[in-house]
Amino acid sequence: MLTRLFPNLDWLRAYSRGAFGNDLIAALVVTIMLIPQGMAYAMLAGLPPQAGLYGAILPLLLYALLGTSRTLAVGPVAVVALMTAAAAGEIAAQGEPGYHLAALGIALVSGAIMLVMGLFRLGFIASFLSHPVISGFITAAGILIAASQLRHLLGNETRGRTLPDIVPSFIQNLSTIHLPTLALGLVVLGFLFWSRKGLAPVLRRLGLSAGMAGLLAKGALLVAVAGSTVAVWALGLDAAGVNVVGEIPRGLPEFSMPALDLGLLQLLIIPALMIAIVGYVESISIGQTLAAKRRQRLDPDRELIALGAANLGAGMSNAMPVTGGLSRSIVNFDAGAETPAAGAMTALMIAVALIFLTPLLHFLPNATLAAIIVVAVASLLDFRALPRTFAYSRADGTAMAGTIAVTLFIGVEEGLLAGVVLSLVLFLYRTSRPHMAVIGQVAGTEHFRNIERHQVSTDPAVFSIRVDESLYFPNARALENRILAAVAENPDLRHVVLNCVAVNFIDASALESLEEINQRLRDAGVQFHLTEVKGPVMDRLQRGHFLDELSGRVFLTQYDAMAALAPDLTRRTLAAARPEDSHLPAPQG
Amino acid sequence: MLTRLFPNLDWLRAYSRGAFGNDLIAALVVTIMLIPQGMAYAMLAGLPPQAGLYGAILPLLLYALLGTSRTLAVGPVAVVALMTAAAAGEIAAQGEPGYHLAALGIALVSGAIMLVMGLFRLGFIASFLSHPVISGFITAAGILIAASQLRHLLGNETRGRTLPDIVPSFIQNLSTIHLPTLALGLVVLGFLFWSRKGLAPVLRRLGLSAGMAGLLAKGALLVAVAGSTVAVWALGLDAAGVNVVGEIPRGLPEFSMPALDLGLLQLLIIPALMIAIVGYVESISIGQTLAAKRRQRLDPDRELIALGAANLGAGMSNAMPVTGGLSRSIVNFDAGAETPAAGAMTALMIAVALIFLTPLLHFLPNATLAAIIVVAVASLLDFRALPRTFAYSRADGTAMAGTIAVTLFIGVEEGLLAGVVLSLVLFLYRTSRPHMAVIGQVAGTEHFRNIERHQVSTDPAVFSIRVDESLYFPNARALENRILAAVAENPDLRHVVLNCVAVNFIDASALESLEEINQRLRDAGVQFHLTEVKGPVMDRLQRGHFLDELSGRVFLTQYDAMAALAPDLTRRTLAAARPEDSHLPAPQG
Repeated sequence: MLTRLFPNLDWLRAYSRGAFGNDLIAALVVTIMLIPQGMAYAMLAGLPPQAGLYGAILPLLLYALLGTSRTLAVGPVAVVALMTAAAAGEIAAQGEPGYHLAALGIALVSGAIMLVMGLFRLGFIASFLSHPVISGFITAAGILIAASQLRHLLGNETRGRTLPDIVPSFIQNLSTIHLPTLALGLVVLGFLFWSRKGLAPVLRRLGLSAGMAGLLAKGALLVAVAGSTVAVWALGLDAAGVNVVGEIPRGLPEFSMPALDLGLLQLLIIPALMIAIVGYVESISIGQTLAAKRRQRLDPDRELIALGAANLGAGMSNAMPVTGGLSRSIVNFDAGAETPAAGAMTALMIAVALIFLTPLLHFLPNATLAAIIVVAVASLLDFRALPRTFAYSRADGTAMAGTIAVTLFIGVEEGLLAGVVLSLVLFLYRTSRPHMAVIGQVAGTEHFRNIERHQVSTDPAVFSIRVDESLYFPNARALENRILAAVAENPDLRHVVLNCVAVNFIDASALESLEEINQRLRDAGVQFHLTEVKGPVMDRLQRGHFLDELSGRVFLTQYDAMAALAPDLTRRTLAAARPEDSHLPAPQG
Repeated sequence: MLTRLFPNLDWLRAYSRGAFGNDLIAALVVTIMLIPQGMAYAMLAGLPPQAGLYGAILPLLLYALLGTSRTLAVGPVAVVALMTAAAAGEIAAQGEPGYHLAALGIALVSGAIMLVMGLFRLGFIASFLSHPVISGFITAAGILIAASQLRHLLGNETRGRTLPDIVPSFIQNLSTIHLPTLALGLVVLGFLFWSRKGLAPVLRRLGLSAGMAGLLAKGALLVAVAGSTVAVWALGLDAAGVNVVGEIPRGLPEFSMPALDLGLLQLLIIPALMIAIVGYVESISIGQTLAAKRRQRLDPDRELIALGAANLGAGMSNAMPVTGGLSRSIVNFDAGAETPAAGAMTALMIAVALIFLTPLLHFLPNATLAAIIVVAVASLLDFRALPRTFAYSRADGTAMAGTIAVTLFIGVEEGLLAGVVLSLVLFLYRTSRPHMAVIGQVAGTEHFRNIERHQVSTDPAVFSIRVDESLYFPNARALENRILAAVAENPDLRHVVLNCVAVNFIDASALESLEEINQRLRDAGVQFHLTEVKGPVMDRLQRGHFLDELSGRVFLTQYDAMAALAPDLTRRTLAAARPEDSHLPAPQG
């Protein structure tokens, strides 16, 4: 019954005590990470700490019901938190009531967008984000996230959303650094960085197994939280000016539809769309990586539906936007999570914590949360990606550099948009200049190759050209220009032969271009022929009038065309000795 | 000296008396069209009539100096005039001083954009406009243009910029139709429509040669202008409420830089960019068509520079935005224009007309100009294009229908933007789902074909897939999904072979996808192999680390790969009898 309503729950049928035990351990480890991370990311988003914890209850339950990944850990994540802060900050100042409302609106709208994208199978829209743009965006966002935590680590008023704001603010506020806060922050930061690699070996030396040591090392967060909280409480640091989390409302979140008006929703659509796409891309990437390790499979459209439901749940439970996060998912997987039940158990543990443990978190210093954020985003930074991408392809490197620069210097949304536009423009630029080769016959064969790379024979009355790309609107004009140029240059030209061996598709723009080429060649007294047209392309051409109006013919092969248009030369070339060095590489050569 | 500064003036060296005579006749015919059309398009743009005439002086001289087309007739055109009205109307109401200033700003900014695009060889940006979008946009703009002239033809206050505005306004104002204006307008309209096909035969019957009759028929505009002007003057129709052009300042335009502030320029950038692109596309299309008829050639980047200079000239001489127009260019060509001198002579004739003839135009009724506009745009309407495009490709038809609908119902700029976005999204949609074929070996051969279309043998441990598309960011994820799905479905799988025969390019996103596929397959205990990688693709792959990390090998051919990975089956299949019906179509089959 339940599995019929929720087909993703098929794992329930064979759920064993062993799997339950594994899921329980994984849920415990994830919960220990999630309590401080949730509060930290809420702080990053400019929201009260409970917003992060609430984001780890209803959204996790909904994802467990609907999601197709068995090990993805959903909840608040750093990049989405930063984007939420940027978008909500456009609506209201942090701390104003409108600010949290805007954040809830973002969760609802981005949830609805994901849901619609999933239901209508529009997940392909995420492909507008190329890898270099995502990678550049995440690195730049990581830098901005770390910079935004300076305020909490220094205990002063360093503020700003982009480097041109943060850097001068940092310098102006150097004189107001609160030394106890800085000292506490540095100790926690040092401990956390050290623990990432140094803790497990120490635990192993204490006699623990490698696996157990690795798991317990994830408890470093707990140690940092507990240690710094006790330190503040015992030393009275809060009275000395160290900012602490303070009171967190005890108990579960209230469920209600936030009072959003239409004007606000309209303002939120663009940022929510961007958050939905970034969140989806981040989540599906880690989800697929983990699923592949166990030969499991994600359904991208159902993932969108599940993440959409999770965000709708977040918006209706006073939480913050969520998605599948990198670090907690890896921990969940490594800790042995076998089914989505681990996520549901995490949600229950967080709920229990909200009911019983919030008083204990009163003295948790903000500096500790800031240190947790900095350590988490440090793993996102990949400074070597830029030179590596540039070395592979200048266009991709340019898109990445543009994304990074605009994100750092102008803003998060602008950076992402700039990346999308840049990669589309560069893509169109490349596609608008497809590789085109003028081809001739290789002596002693029926093969035709690029005249610039091979010794081939050509007839001055015949211009044979091969386009190594499908023909569609970005490159329709390029072919027209190339052929018309050839006609203008060669007064003896009588035939143009278009070799379509690499053409997988011809769209309406390219079809019109072909019609125009045909017409213009006819005006100039030149016949237009096609060769090696693939079956599906031919099927489509036959739907229009182009083939009826074609001044020349459609030949099966280039050799057939040349044998008909320049029979003497073609026969002579076929009979000639094959050149010694010719072993005929693939057609693009 | 002059030809070194302006390389396009090479025709000057061999300029003959015969060419001069031909250019002079063409210039005269074009001038006769241009005087009423210029005034009419100025009216369409919401500007005083002289703005259209000024747009036919300096811009034409600049284009004659810099342009590469020998027969293109530059000047005010209908679609650009409509777009100018839409954009300037956002800044100020028609008739306010800010309105003409905005129109001059549009000419300057779009001129500067064209100039920059030409200098930096960015003409490919025009390929963002697919043919169906242009065609749909021009048809919809034609409808809006014709509807906008109802006011002048009916002599009432029918107004509005989109159908939802114009239709109710038309109905409300039915009771205030000014009958003398309507009668005059209908007579002119009827005469002009008839003259398009009916006048030349009549002239031929009067004993004129076919060529001369065709040329003189272009004088129908002059007849309509002169006849209706005389009618108004003689019958005193202006006193009876027929609106006339009125006073046109006598003499040449003043040259000055309009007083634009930065805020206004910023507002104008987007509409000016759209006007620049539409103007460029319209101009280059007709220019290339005409050039091809005489086996001449245009340089697309220099065309941008020349059109940019022409628009800067327009902005600095109190004129309106200009581009190469369809109808006058064809007339110029048919009248025998041989060189750009024809354009320069047209400019001089217009200047002479401005100095001496403007008083004669005082009684020219607006209804005549409206009729000229309606006749001119009627030839732009192509209602059969939509079903034709739909029949060829649903995606292209959708883009066209969307462009038409948004242009008619929401606005000109929105329509163009919607078309660009729609065609990009549909393009990405198609590209994000490339044709992928699982392939197997055809008995008795070394050939491999789609298992869904041919009888082929496959080995359960080897998954061979051919992608019929280059690998780049829109489709990078699709390949990943397809391969991971195959791995999840086939527990016996040990090898994945990617056949790259149709891959012309691999961008950084696809490279990362390949790296992820390799890593995930390795995690799942599956080797990843490539075959038939083209030379340039291989060169690029060798710049990165992918080939070092590849878990499998790169084979020269698919047969080599299968002979190594499944030697028994491959040898058996090669030795088997070749199926009777197999004559092996092109690889996509």
